[in-house]
Amino acid sequence: MRIAIDAMGGDFAPKETVLGAIDACQEFDADIILVGMEKDIKKELTGRSLSSLKLEVFPTSEMISMDEHPAAAVKRKTDSSLVVANRLVHEGKAAAVISAGNTGAAMAAGLLNLGRIKGIKRPAIAVPMPTKKGVCVLLDAGANADCEPENLLQFAIMGSIYAEKVLGLVKPRIGLFNVGQEETKGNRLAVEAHQLLKMSKLNFIGNIEGNDVHQGDCEVIVCDGFVGNTILKVSEGLAEVLFAEIKGAIASNYLSSLGGLLIKNSIRKLKRRLDPVEYGGAPLLGLNGISMISHGNSNAKAIKNAIKAAIKTINEDIISIISTSINTQYAV
Amino acid sequence: MRIAIDAMGGDFAPKETVLGAIDACQEFDADIILVGMEKDIKKELTGRSLSSLKLEVFPTSEMISMDEHPAAAVKRKTDSSLVVANRLVHEGKAAAVISAGNTGAAMAAGLLNLGRIKGIKRPAIAVPMPTKKGVCVLLDAGANADCEPENLLQFAIMGSIYAEKVLGLVKPRIGLFNVGQEETKGNRLAVEAHQLLKMSKLNFIGNIEGNDVHQGDCEVIVCDGFVGNTILKVSEGLAEVLFAEIKGAIASNYLSSLGGLLIKNSIRKLKRRLDPVEYGGAPLLGLNGISMISHGNSNAKAIKNAIKAAIKTINEDIISIISTSINTQYAV
Repeated sequence: MRIAIDAMGGDFAPKETVLGAIDACQEFDADIILVGMEKDIKKELTGRSLSSLKLEVFPTSEMISMDEHPAAAVKRKTDSSLVVANRLVHEGKAAAVISAGNTGAAMAAGLLNLGRIKGIKRPAIAVPMPTKKGVCVLLDAGANADCEPENLLQFAIMGSIYAEKVLGLVKPRIGLFNVGQEETKGNRLAVEAHQLLKMSKLNFIGNIEGNDVHQGDCEVIVCDGFVGNTILKVSEGLAEVLFAEIKGAIASNYLSSLGGLLIKNSIRKLKRRLDPVEYGGAPLLGLNGISMISHGNSNAKAIKNAIKAAIKTINEDIISIISTSINTQYAV
Repeated sequence: MRIAIDAMGGDFAPKETVLGAIDACQEFDADIILVGMEKDIKKELTGRSLSSLKLEVFPTSEMISMDEHPAAAVKRKTDSSLVVANRLVHEGKAAAVISAGNTGAAMAAGLLNLGRIKGIKRPAIAVPMPTKKGVCVLLDAGANADCEPENLLQFAIMGSIYAEKVLGLVKPRIGLFNVGQEETKGNRLAVEAHQLLKMSKLNFIGNIEGNDVHQGDCEVIVCDGFVGNTILKVSEGLAEVLFAEIKGAIASNYLSSLGGLLIKNSIRKLKRRLDPVEYGGAPLLGLNGISMISHGNSNAKAIKNAIKAAIKTINEDIISIISTSINTQYAV
C-alpha cells in the first residue's frame, strides 16, 4: 500500500515534503514513493539513516508551479511530479497521491488520470475545518465555482462518508450553508439543494448560517466551490488579522507587554488547536482514486498528517463505499 | 431635515433607539421623529429633560418582528413603525429613515414606499466593514441572493459614491470579490462582472480574495448578496469564537489569568476599534430615499452613529449623485 508524494509541490518543497515522508515512515511504517527531481530529493535525503525505511525516489523532469493554468499545465507537463504521481495511482503502483502544490492542477491531474467514480458528476475538495467543538468537513472548497443542486447532494453523501469513516465522527450531521434558516431562503441553488437533501436518507439538519460555521453544530457543511472558498479564505484572513492585531494591542504599553508574556503559552496552545494541519489534508472526493491535497504552506507535520489520513482513507475503502452509496442507498 | 426612527425595531428597542435619538439630538442638534408604540416610547422619555430637543413621537399600532416574512409583513402591517417611518420619507415629512429591525422588511418597505432610483435595477445593503487599515464598504450584504453582472457594476458605482461622500474616503478603490487573481477566475457572475468593471470609469483594482477582505487594500468590495452575507456573517461568527477561545485560553492557568488582567484594557480598545458600530449603520443604496439599517443588536451609540451617517448622506445629496452617475458618467 504505497503512497505517492508529489515531492516538488508546495512552498517549502522538497525539503518539508521529504521530511514529512521520512517522519511518516518512521512513525507509522508508511511506504512512500517520492516523486520529483531526483537531485533535489536526494539532497534532502543525504546524511539521514534511511535503510529501514520504505522510501523510494521516482525521478521526474518537470514541475507545475503555483501560478500555472491548471488544465493546460497538466496536459502539457506529462512528466511533472504531480501528473506522474497521479499516473502511478492510476497504474496501481501507488494507492494514493498527495500534493501540497497547485490545487487546481491536482484536481485536473486527478480528473485526467484517475477519472471520476461512476455516477459522480463533479468531484469536490473537502476541507476538514477546526470548530469550537472539534472538526467539520466543508465541501466544495473551490473546485466547482458554479454548481447544480445535485452536485451539493453528492457532496453531502461523500462528505458524510469521509467524516464517518476517516475522521471517525459518529452519525455525521449534514448542514447546507445558507443565508437564512427557512428552507425558502437563499439563492436558487440553496433553495433547490435544500429540498434534495431533505428528501435524502442523509442526517440532514437544515441550513447553517455564516455565524454558525465555526460552532461545530454539524460535521459536514455543503456549498458550491465559490462560497466554500470564500468561507475558508475569509476565515483564514481574519484569524491572521485578529491575532496580529491582538499581538499589536498587547505590545502597546509596558503592563500589557508583561501580560502578553504571561499568556504566550496559552495562546500558542490555542493556535495549535485551531490549526487545520492537525486534520491531515483535504481529500478530492469523487475521483476514482485517492488524492489528497495539503495547504501550499505545508510543513513536514502537515505532510505526515496527510499521509496518515490517506492511509486511513485507503483502509476504509472509501471509494467503494462512495460508489455504492451514490448508485444505490442514497439515490433520491 | 428630520430623521424618522423606527423606534420599535431591534433587540433592545425601544429603550436603546430612544436613547440613541436623544443622544443625537443633544450632541449634534438632530431633528428626530420617533415612530412606534406611543406608550412604550413615552415610557423611555419619562423623567428626561427634553424641552430643548427636537424630538417628536409619531404613534403607530403595529410592529414587524425579526422572524416575519419581510414582503408579507410589510404589505399587511401598514401601520407598523417601519412602514410608517418609510412613508414619512416618501411624503417628504422626513429626509431619512433608520431601523434596527428586520432587514428584509426594511428593504421591502423601502422598495414599496420609496421605490428605486431611476436606472437602478436592484438596491443593495452596503455595510461599512472595519479593516486593518480603516474601513471598507461591502455590497451587496444580503438583499439579492442571485445577481446579474450589471447589478455588481451598479453596486460598485453606488458604493464608490457612498465611500467618498459619506465616509470621506478619497478616490475609493473598487475590488471585485473573487476566488482567484486572474480575470478568468471565479464563477460566471464574477468573470462577467470583472469585464464590466474593467471597462467602466471606476477606480477598479481587480479581484479581492477571501484572505484579503480584511486587509484594507480597497475601499469598496462588490459581490452578490449571498456571498456578501457569507463574508460578513462568517467574519462575525469567527471573531466571536476567537475572542471567546482566547479568553478561555487565558483563564486556563494562574499565570495566564494574571497576564489576562494586564492586557484587558488593550483588548477592550482593540474590540472597540474593530466594532462596526463606529461606522454608523448600513445604507440601502439604490432606493429613491435615504434608508439606513442598523444591526439588530444596536445600542444607543449605534443608533446615534446611524443618525449621524444619515445626516451626512442627506447633506451630500447622495441620491442625486447616484442618479446622475447611473444615467450618464459611468454608463458602460
